[in-house]
Amino acid sequence: MKIKKIDHVALATRSIEDATKIWKEMGMDIHYEEVPEQKVKVAMIKIGDSRLEILEPTAEDSPISRFLEKHGGGLHHIAVEVDDIENAIDELKSKGFRMIDETPRVGAGGKKIAFVHPKSAKVLLELVEAKI
Amino acid sequence: MKIKKIDHVALATRSIEDATKIWKEMGMDIHYEEVPEQKVKVAMIKIGDSRLEILEPTAEDSPISRFLEKHGGGLHHIAVEVDDIENAIDELKSKGFRMIDETPRVGAGGKKIAFVHPKSAKVLLELVEAKI
Repeated sequence: MKIKKIDHVALATRSIEDATKIWKEMGMDIHYEEVPEQKVKVAMIKIGDSRLEILEPTAEDSPISRFLEKHGGGLHHIAVEVDDIENAIDELKSKGFRMIDETPRVGAGGKKIAFVHPKSAKVLLELVEAKI
Repeated sequence: MKIKKIDHVALATRSIEDATKIWKEMGMDIHYEEVPEQKVKVAMIKIGDSRLEILEPTAEDSPISRFLEKHGGGLHHIAVEVDDIENAIDELKSKGFRMIDETPRVGAGGKKIAFVHPKSAKVLLELVEAKI
């Protein structure tokens, strides 16, 4: 398995408007999307070779609503880019780590993604396969 | 102000040994340091052009101990690299954002750093000046 970069870091907030303010004022470009299957609005900010994703829930039963109830706003997960996601999942499972997604699913931008269980990674860790 | 990259993302944990396990198994090199003024041990993992820093407190009155009491383990802050930190601080203050550090201080690796107040940034945000 080869980890190539931090693909993105995700920040959970009750208000995208409030949380994007400082990035706008610092002159960063912001791209907005809605991800209905996660029930979130997303503001994406390109920083160097990585992204900051700011997530606001659009429903009470969004995974981000549950995080906000428990923690208030804050950093939610980190995503790293791997060269071969099936291989990465197999390798982690064979070493005893627990996956939330045992097979990849399609995430933002049509990329293959899989989450490692936070009990195993001690952080919510997303694997993202680089698009060729 | 120019933001060039994510310098690092910091993860707070009660056990560096537990939290570094998955990164070791994924074949990443880990460099260890102790930062007495913050009362933490740090495991630094280079990921592409950025770093993951895993922080374990060495005392009950470390800022990281207080975070762990409140949140349990989790992502603690994000640091971005700026070209001129004095200029960045002045610009943020002039736009009404609140700084924890109104003048830069010296952080890991001898770099100039300053934290923006989480009330302003909606996340604990560290500015790091690139070393020439």
